[in-house]
Amino acid sequence: MNDSLHLTLEEVHALAFEALAANGFSAAQARAIADTVTAAERDLCTSHGLFRIAFYVNALNNPDVDPTAVPVVSELAPAVVHVDGRFGFAPLALEMGAAPLVEKARAQGIAALCLNNIYHIAALWPELERVAEQGLAAFAFTAALPYMAPAGGTRPLYGTNPMAFAWPRKDHPPLVFDQASSVTARGEIQIHLRDGKPIPVGWAIGPDGEPTTDPETALKGAQLPFGGHKGAAIALMVELLAGALVGDLFSYEAAAKDTGTGAPLGGEFLIAIDPGRCVRDGDREKQLAHAEQLLQKIGEQEGTRLPSDRRYAARKRTPTEGIRIPRTLHQTLVAYTRES
Amino acid sequence: MNDSLHLTLEEVHALAFEALAANGFSAAQARAIADTVTAAERDLCTSHGLFRIAFYVNALNNPDVDPTAVPVVSELAPAVVHVDGRFGFAPLALEMGAAPLVEKARAQGIAALCLNNIYHIAALWPELERVAEQGLAAFAFTAALPYMAPAGGTRPLYGTNPMAFAWPRKDHPPLVFDQASSVTARGEIQIHLRDGKPIPVGWAIGPDGEPTTDPETALKGAQLPFGGHKGAAIALMVELLAGALVGDLFSYEAAAKDTGTGAPLGGEFLIAIDPGRCVRDGDREKQLAHAEQLLQKIGEQEGTRLPSDRRYAARKRTPTEGIRIPRTLHQTLVAYTRES
Repeated sequence: MNDSLHLTLEEVHALAFEALAANGFSAAQARAIADTVTAAERDLCTSHGLFRIAFYVNALNNPDVDPTAVPVVSELAPAVVHVDGRFGFAPLALEMGAAPLVEKARAQGIAALCLNNIYHIAALWPELERVAEQGLAAFAFTAALPYMAPAGGTRPLYGTNPMAFAWPRKDHPPLVFDQASSVTARGEIQIHLRDGKPIPVGWAIGPDGEPTTDPETALKGAQLPFGGHKGAAIALMVELLAGALVGDLFSYEAAAKDTGTGAPLGGEFLIAIDPGRCVRDGDREKQLAHAEQLLQKIGEQEGTRLPSDRRYAARKRTPTEGIRIPRTLHQTLVAYTRES
Repeated sequence: MNDSLHLTLEEVHALAFEALAANGFSAAQARAIADTVTAAERDLCTSHGLFRIAFYVNALNNPDVDPTAVPVVSELAPAVVHVDGRFGFAPLALEMGAAPLVEKARAQGIAALCLNNIYHIAALWPELERVAEQGLAAFAFTAALPYMAPAGGTRPLYGTNPMAFAWPRKDHPPLVFDQASSVTARGEIQIHLRDGKPIPVGWAIGPDGEPTTDPETALKGAQLPFGGHKGAAIALMVELLAGALVGDLFSYEAAAKDTGTGAPLGGEFLIAIDPGRCVRDGDREKQLAHAEQLLQKIGEQEGTRLPSDRRYAARKRTPTEGIRIPRTLHQTLVAYTRES
């Protein structure tokens, strides 16, 4: 345990906030990012936890990024909210859009949130969980940088474009899945490269379009979608929703604007639906109880688990037990707080 | 060519309509189904063409099915339309819901269509194409009968639950994908059984939960989702949307109500979004032109094609050239028209 360090979740938040604030992030941007990072550590999603602070700070090497941006919320239609992120990061923009999205979904039955000009390097489940905790079903879509080839193609064009979905539960955190359109996260390939290990067949193709198990060749080539052309269709859908629909960049356009920081500029699209407005009797309790019957049927089969089960299991422990992070990561973050 | 027969699309429609009308379908139900079946033949989607008329007629062996049902349209919320299919078939209910859905999406920016009490044994692309032709992006979700196991499980619970998406195009039919959550259609396994051929590894597991290449064992076991747990998550999402959200049956509940006809009773959920209401300048032309840039980039890569390309290529020929159907199928349909 000498190479790792114990932190409470409060310490995680303070460390994240201070590292960002010391690097020119406004208090509002830093706090929103620290919330997201802390939520990830709480759920033991390490790759989206404190590890990611360096990505945010590094993104400032792109002169277009504004760590003090104040997002602007407006209405585009009775059921459509707009947030202009003003070239800041996603967490604050998403937080500011959530309440009007929820309000509109309740009033109209279904509503959308269109975000522009944000740098999104977090998971999508935090924004969906926030909406679903208000009793709504919800979707989120965002593009990324071009790492995947279109179906039948060989050159990168689509991002690893995640699609996320949330369903509200009674007396339980929402069911949420948040899945990339690619077979695997890019970081997994990078870890194989670092460790000198081959990657499984099916993860990627090389620049020649042929399947490869060499991580270096894979990173120069293109990642593959999950489920072949079906996953590629989902990646295409995400490009259209988070790009053309909300009037923002496709992954390949985000790449053209990136200065090598790996933080893509772009849009995000969310949908929120009020179950109580989708049935004639308006009995939302009955709908949620019905859903629980399905979830119970799943649980009756040995070996199953729900998409968010693992995160929620972690969440039961970490608020009291805290978490551990690598000592080297802690040193990096502490150095950030002194570097301002 | 002696075992096949040439038909114009007009003849396809008339044959479908007459076979249904002679079996007790109302003119409205028969015409709506014939439209869907003809659209499938036009696009050379043979499995959803005239071949399917027997499924509709066979469904009448279930006494709950009403082939003369008159769907009832109502409003559940400013952005939510409801159609009660009254235990008739999906095509007429979907047709009647389309105009109010489009109207609401234009007025509110985004809108939903919740359908109940329909028997859905068609593809989803016809209903999405109708909405996207009005310039809207759209989703559709429907459950089926329990043929797939949940992630990690071994017993059937989810349907092969399709999710479909459409994007409007200028001077071109919409881009549409309509894909089951399973690796392959159930019919493909049945065809392998008929032909005495093994199925590929990865399509299904047997009742013992082990991978199988025997089609008979596969049909007794469970089909597998595309992309492993990611496809299973999509199947779960579809159950929640077309079941709990719209207050209708899950796939396993539909099975309990099916009398062996294979036509599942249940719900469907559609979302329509007006791109012009999702951007500040309201310039929909610019959005569609932007999307075309992405589609062009895809086309620049050799070997690619868009999800609906094959159907649209067929559609250019069949209205003048007509289509061919097996003579045995024609005989079956002609017999139907005399059986009333």
